[in-house]
Amino acid sequence: MPTIDAERVLRDLRHLRTMGAFKTGVHRPALSAEHLASMAWLKGELEALGHQTTIDGIGNVFGIAPVNGRKLLGGSHLESQNYAGWLDGPLGVVYALEAARAVKADSALAGCGVDVVAWCDEEGHFGHFLGSRSGIGQVSESDIDAAVDRTSGTTMREALKAAGLDGRPRVTVDAKRYVGFLEAHIEQGDWLEANKLKVGVVTAIVGSRNFNITFEGVQNHAGTTRMAIRRDAGVACARLVMAIEKLFPTICGPRTVWTTGRVTLSPGDPSIIPGRAEMLFQFRDTDADLLDRLEVALRGLVEDANREGPCTVVLEQNRKGMPAAMAESFQVAVETSAEARSPGRYTRMPSGAGHDAQILAAVMPAGMMFVPSIGGISHHWSENTSDEDIVLGAQVYADAVGRLLQG
Amino acid sequence: MPTIDAERVLRDLRHLRTMGAFKTGVHRPALSAEHLASMAWLKGELEALGHQTTIDGIGNVFGIAPVNGRKLLGGSHLESQNYAGWLDGPLGVVYALEAARAVKADSALAGCGVDVVAWCDEEGHFGHFLGSRSGIGQVSESDIDAAVDRTSGTTMREALKAAGLDGRPRVTVDAKRYVGFLEAHIEQGDWLEANKLKVGVVTAIVGSRNFNITFEGVQNHAGTTRMAIRRDAGVACARLVMAIEKLFPTICGPRTVWTTGRVTLSPGDPSIIPGRAEMLFQFRDTDADLLDRLEVALRGLVEDANREGPCTVVLEQNRKGMPAAMAESFQVAVETSAEARSPGRYTRMPSGAGHDAQILAAVMPAGMMFVPSIGGISHHWSENTSDEDIVLGAQVYADAVGRLLQG
Repeated sequence: MPTIDAERVLRDLRHLRTMGAFKTGVHRPALSAEHLASMAWLKGELEALGHQTTIDGIGNVFGIAPVNGRKLLGGSHLESQNYAGWLDGPLGVVYALEAARAVKADSALAGCGVDVVAWCDEEGHFGHFLGSRSGIGQVSESDIDAAVDRTSGTTMREALKAAGLDGRPRVTVDAKRYVGFLEAHIEQGDWLEANKLKVGVVTAIVGSRNFNITFEGVQNHAGTTRMAIRRDAGVACARLVMAIEKLFPTICGPRTVWTTGRVTLSPGDPSIIPGRAEMLFQFRDTDADLLDRLEVALRGLVEDANREGPCTVVLEQNRKGMPAAMAESFQVAVETSAEARSPGRYTRMPSGAGHDAQILAAVMPAGMMFVPSIGGISHHWSENTSDEDIVLGAQVYADAVGRLLQG
Repeated sequence: MPTIDAERVLRDLRHLRTMGAFKTGVHRPALSAEHLASMAWLKGELEALGHQTTIDGIGNVFGIAPVNGRKLLGGSHLESQNYAGWLDGPLGVVYALEAARAVKADSALAGCGVDVVAWCDEEGHFGHFLGSRSGIGQVSESDIDAAVDRTSGTTMREALKAAGLDGRPRVTVDAKRYVGFLEAHIEQGDWLEANKLKVGVVTAIVGSRNFNITFEGVQNHAGTTRMAIRRDAGVACARLVMAIEKLFPTICGPRTVWTTGRVTLSPGDPSIIPGRAEMLFQFRDTDADLLDRLEVALRGLVEDANREGPCTVVLEQNRKGMPAAMAESFQVAVETSAEARSPGRYTRMPSGAGHDAQILAAVMPAGMMFVPSIGGISHHWSENTSDEDIVLGAQVYADAVGRLLQG
């Protein structure tokens, strides 16, 4: 089995944390100077290992092992959410880098190799999985033309130009060349920690349905307009939120989640009846049929609201992410490796968050493994995992890679 | 009876509309250049009439009739809400100005007079009824120090300085000198129009209770956090909105109104469970006891929410406006005048909106009359009243002033 260097794993992760350090986390948006520095660092490490490296026209970093035998593609992403955690993304990149080093050093795996990739913008600063979707040929030039950083308003074209990446070709992975793609990540939930487990073997990545729901009423003076004639868009919005809270528990699965993340009442003045309201609603599950049933239920509630009035409700679907099953062979490889290194302290579980592995699953076998998140916290600078769990995870990852490369 | 000049009333109002014209309405925030222009115009008209004029240290414009007999104080305000209507405020100022002219010209009222006032900032750009509250001695220098324009962020001190008003004394009205204060206004609702009436005789101005309600939950990832362990502040907020919608109709009076004007979920990201929510809630009625009962009911709902969890709810009272009864003598004077000019086409009604008259009512008899709002629209540039109704209202106002001055 390929053997990792525990200190090197921790050193690499801590070094990445210096790039855009924010409290104990990082602020490293896609294509920021700090993100570019982390990409350059990865390229250097891969070159030092003897990999052939490329940073392509959308900011994906590739390191190709110069071998002719079985190959696995491993990695994750280097950019962070704004003012967020240090492990999300980098953990999976460093695990893949360390596995590539360990495989190269393992004579039992001679001729095999790990190609390492850091997908650009998994966090969606410019768009939805732009890097990994480009890597499987799903992003057009006009998609890039349209991409704008949601925080700064910078276009992706401007950011790529400033990074010196504009005009470079984009690399599409040769899916047939790989036994598959393996990604490691922090859990971003508290299931492993709460159950004193060390490794999550991901069975599937949830699909999500995202909706923009708009309520049109009549804006009017909050003092002079009698209740009987009001068409209050804010009340209509609250009514739908509560109707969902009542209906969804009766039809959901055990791990279904649904969230109203944003509500906007217009004009938002304390003395004006909201004439318009908007809510962003999403739900997620690993079962595509269940997602369909939930969508039918949601559309039914919107129809009810329109029939009952007094406001008009419009449901607009924003984005539909299909659930992605992880390859059974990858689940077995991770599970077997976890059992060997930490007997009994692992579990099969779905991923409630989206990851690049769900994109890669469309073109090759894909797998994911989780390590515990302290307190279940993620997307926050206080996100953390114990050194012990980080190191154990790195070895389980490398072991699983070894098993998959041996076939 | 004092007789108005219908063309002059319309001409004055149309002239005021040119100051900050926006579509068919106006954008004339308190102490803006456009507002200062309107104040200067009013001062000029009052001087032409022979009144002694002052613009005081908070931007109130006073025109004092040089007479020794019975006096009435009339007026309203000249500034507008942002991008709002042309009549709100200016109508009451022009009616008072025209009544002052008509009274002066009426030999039957020799020795009597109408003092005219335009209170600054009834619309609350810098604060709650700052001008009229200053006029009855309720505003301290530190209140002015703390006042900030809610749109531009300019301090009131800066705005007064830019207007050349800083350092001027502020005028407190000599309440005993007046038979009372009479204010005219557009209805800002559709009751008069819907019932084909021409004049509203205001019985009382509603009191209001304003609350900031904060919900504290736990912010977390919308994909990885199971429903069972969520503490979603947004759902808690929607639940309270709907609990109010269920309870208030069972305890409210016939004209009680309640409104959730603003809701903010933090952080407001579609994939993050809101850890915090805030709502601005208010209710209004003319009955102080009923306002108390509604507040008890609201506090009960908040207690229920805290007991049931999973979020913490904090209710903070922002502002408490007491209901103000209009003087019976003023109601009779307006009613009698309306009956004479438009038999049967008037009604007694409360004012759901706040007005300077409610402030003046604390120190002298006060009255209000409404003219119809087309479509019930106000605080919007399309706000309007027919010329015929404007002119009829001006005459009814002048007649009522005549009756009140004759005693």
